[in-house]
Amino acid sequence: MADAVLFEFLHTEMVAELWAPDPDPGSGGKKRSLSVLEGLGFRVGQALGERLPRETPAFREELDALKFLCKDLWAAMFQKHMDGLRTNHQALFCCQGTYVLQDNSFPLLIAMGSGPQYLEEAPKFLAFTCGLLCGALHTLGFQSLVTASVASLPACKFQVVIQKS
Amino acid sequence: MADAVLFEFLHTEMVAELWAPDPDPGSGGKKRSLSVLEGLGFRVGQALGERLPRETPAFREELDALKFLCKDLWAAMFQKHMDGLRTNHQALFCCQGTYVLQDNSFPLLIAMGSGPQYLEEAPKFLAFTCGLLCGALHTLGFQSLVTASVASLPACKFQVVIQKS
Repeated sequence: MADAVLFEFLHTEMVAELWAPDPDPGSGGKKRSLSVLEGLGFRVGQALGERLPRETPAFREELDALKFLCKDLWAAMFQKHMDGLRTNHQALFCCQGTYVLQDNSFPLLIAMGSGPQYLEEAPKFLAFTCGLLCGALHTLGFQSLVTASVASLPACKFQVVIQKS
Repeated sequence: MADAVLFEFLHTEMVAELWAPDPDPGSGGKKRSLSVLEGLGFRVGQALGERLPRETPAFREELDALKFLCKDLWAAMFQKHMDGLRTNHQALFCCQGTYVLQDNSFPLLIAMGSGPQYLEEAPKFLAFTCGLLCGALHTLGFQSLVTASVASLPACKFQVVIQKS
């Protein structure tokens, strides 16, 4: 029994708990649930970022920070590396770094079914991790917007847009 | 950066989220928060119990199940063993097994302050784990009641009462 599954089980149950159907359908319950999960992920990401080994050099370049997320952070969370990191050069041209992080088999999506009928269920399993990536980047000194998209389960892409100050 | 801290950070933030002050002080909000955390722990414990290695023999004796919690489950969660397991013989006499599991430095209590003024904050950090122990025992075939007590932070005791059918 590996302790990695402990995080995954707790994440699953936390989503189930915080995604409880809103009694008032007009109150934006779904959006609120997503932002609660994102906020929770953000704070966990901030805390993880602060646990960086002290000998790690500062991340002066944003690409270094992104590589850190794809390798070290992903290894700590899922015992593997992200499958791809792509830079959107067009966006870079407008003084904004946009990166696409690809996981071909995202562990927090594996537990759910893989048919296309499950696609609409995916956002609730991605919100925490979007917040977490954003929180870790915040600790590393970068403001960002992180969104996720799924075309075919259990693969997913995280798009990170670094906000220039 | 160890992935063990991921579970601890997530637990801390989950408690902060689910322990949000109840707007109606007369509605039993505290008790409800505790039972939500316990329920969440129960389901995680059930899932962890199902991940037992297949070669593990069935736990015919409840003492075997308790030893499993103290060693294997605690190692998977906190990378250490429980510090003590005591049987309450008086309770056994009434056909009910009562066990006291002692952790002298419970990781989920370490993050909070250790002065006596923090004692009243402790229950919210114990509810999830009480539920988890109960859920794991349920998967192993034992109905139980699990409560926790703290005399001096960050040490705590979990009392497990096995319900005979």
